[in-house]
Amino acid sequence: MASRLTVVYRVRGSAASAAERAEALAVEQSVEMPVSAIADAYVREQIVGRVLGIDQVDDEVHDVRIGLAPETIGDDAGQLFNMLFGNSSLLDDVVLQDVDLPDDLVRAFGGPRHGIDGLRRRIGGRRRALTGSALKPQGLPPDDLARLAARFAQGGIDVVKDDHGLADQAYSPFAARITAVAAALRDVADRTGHRTCYVPSVSGDLDRCSRQIDLARGEGLDTVMVAPMIAGPANVQALVRRYPDIAFIAHPTLAGAARLAPLVLYGRLFRLIGIDGVIFPNHGGRFGYSADTCRALADAARGPWRDLAPVLPIPAGGMTPDRAGEMLDFYGRDVLLLIGGALLRAGDRLIDATAAFVRAVDAHTYGD
Amino acid sequence: MASRLTVVYRVRGSAASAAERAEALAVEQSVEMPVSAIADAYVREQIVGRVLGIDQVDDEVHDVRIGLAPETIGDDAGQLFNMLFGNSSLLDDVVLQDVDLPDDLVRAFGGPRHGIDGLRRRIGGRRRALTGSALKPQGLPPDDLARLAARFAQGGIDVVKDDHGLADQAYSPFAARITAVAAALRDVADRTGHRTCYVPSVSGDLDRCSRQIDLARGEGLDTVMVAPMIAGPANVQALVRRYPDIAFIAHPTLAGAARLAPLVLYGRLFRLIGIDGVIFPNHGGRFGYSADTCRALADAARGPWRDLAPVLPIPAGGMTPDRAGEMLDFYGRDVLLLIGGALLRAGDRLIDATAAFVRAVDAHTYGD
Repeated sequence: MASRLTVVYRVRGSAASAAERAEALAVEQSVEMPVSAIADAYVREQIVGRVLGIDQVDDEVHDVRIGLAPETIGDDAGQLFNMLFGNSSLLDDVVLQDVDLPDDLVRAFGGPRHGIDGLRRRIGGRRRALTGSALKPQGLPPDDLARLAARFAQGGIDVVKDDHGLADQAYSPFAARITAVAAALRDVADRTGHRTCYVPSVSGDLDRCSRQIDLARGEGLDTVMVAPMIAGPANVQALVRRYPDIAFIAHPTLAGAARLAPLVLYGRLFRLIGIDGVIFPNHGGRFGYSADTCRALADAARGPWRDLAPVLPIPAGGMTPDRAGEMLDFYGRDVLLLIGGALLRAGDRLIDATAAFVRAVDAHTYGD
Repeated sequence: MASRLTVVYRVRGSAASAAERAEALAVEQSVEMPVSAIADAYVREQIVGRVLGIDQVDDEVHDVRIGLAPETIGDDAGQLFNMLFGNSSLLDDVVLQDVDLPDDLVRAFGGPRHGIDGLRRRIGGRRRALTGSALKPQGLPPDDLARLAARFAQGGIDVVKDDHGLADQAYSPFAARITAVAAALRDVADRTGHRTCYVPSVSGDLDRCSRQIDLARGEGLDTVMVAPMIAGPANVQALVRRYPDIAFIAHPTLAGAARLAPLVLYGRLFRLIGIDGVIFPNHGGRFGYSADTCRALADAARGPWRDLAPVLPIPAGGMTPDRAGEMLDFYGRDVLLLIGGALLRAGDRLIDATAAFVRAVDAHTYGD
């Protein structure tokens, strides 16, 4: 028998109910029918999920470990999500808490093609944390977004990315936007020597995403942002395979907070399908992640795991420059600090505010 | 100004906090930056989300109504989900509770191309509820699944669909499976005159889904199942546009239960992007939906809404034939009862069990 995936689901209830829930989850995420009605020996032995163990978290919470057959997944990322948490996502007290995969499956997906080192080569090789901001608001025409990008670049920022709301709207079509922004950043680079990496957001169906990446490549861009939970994991996987020269940063939009444990989603599943950098809501911002969640997520994203390249953590979501020092103490140097609104709030003083943010990151002394 | 989308978010907290939350959500789901820092008049007036009202549900729960600009969405289904619930999905006490859209946006998406009438034409035109079951378990080879399909057909069932776990696995490749199942059902139709509609599950990235639909069409099939929350809404939209002759049934896998109100997800958003039938977990089965939720969902799916064709409700998830009468009293005749495991449990008596299920549905007297 091929070795199994080990999947941990966190369930509410007593120890007795956990044992029942474990059996039910093992069936729900594999054959989804009464096991007693399965006549086929291969299916009974190889395909039906198996309860591997139950660990008590507290009196009313248990982690149930289930072994699933990798044959049900093949090498399709959509099917990976389907078999890990498809129907169970409809049970409102079950959290997908952890996952471990056999070597064959890890190799089939392949993980980040570029990872932290590749992103550093694209963005700037210095051994310090990286700085980034976002082009907003939604609704501005391409030339205004390009002027904004140029001002961030004049402040010395490493990365500007599209707001995840920017798509291919009439007021800012993708092609016109990336042409304008890329030209503005080339102009700043020519004048100042500082190259800012522009990361456009690609959206729509797989064909539209592909056409947008073709356009981005045509502008000399080498890194794009995708939203895996909107694009669909299989389509992100297709893009990663189709564009081996492009680095991919994941946006968490539509990813939910409560039920797919952030460590698993960002640190394992996104990493597995080939994401090079993951944006996530930092603790103390607009969203509900705790400091412990963020630390576990960052550790999972960039720590050693199954020979896969490490993923760059990109904490965001209501961050401010005055938190830079604290965030760098927390995350260390392998991080990209993404600060949007708080820099945009500086208005006419945006270049200075950006420069101050970059200086604070430049000057930071790391504990290591 | 173009008329706005009205989006209702249900938030926890006092009336005072709801007012703050409303302002925050209006910004989060539109420009995602401090409004005071937006200089552009067009963006401030047209693009920034607007609080339209706050309704108290109880002391600690409020519905906040936000107006969003349709210009941010264009005609892309992924962007629709992104702007309705992208970042807000990361807030663990916010539920997307309702949505209303301007006419232009409804027309741009277009809704079901076939709906209940089209599905009835494909499946069987009789004015009674429809019966269906699923090909399981995962792990069987194509010939075994085909034999199973033939037995359901001999029992007189209207529809057999692939289990949502069946994809393109080595033990049952999509092409071999649909060829075998379609041939087995043609054979039963030739012998008995009863035609059972086979609905294969298409999976993978957009290109793979397209190739699978081409294969299905080649076998004379006209209805397929997709999982919009795994495939990605924009890709489902692309398939609906690319294959106007194919009817699409949505599976709820990975759709979650708690945060995207089922009525909105199944009854509004799936309908909008062109789904013709929606599978959802019936109350009293393995999943957590209440009877009220199911009724609201079914009403939303098939009730009059914006000139869009009605969607066929397909309650499932641990149903049994002895519930057929109760379910038909509850849902009426415009429904497809999907019973998988409970029929499969009959083993050697599957044809008889299927026939009894079909007879019970045939014989039901509706209240209308």
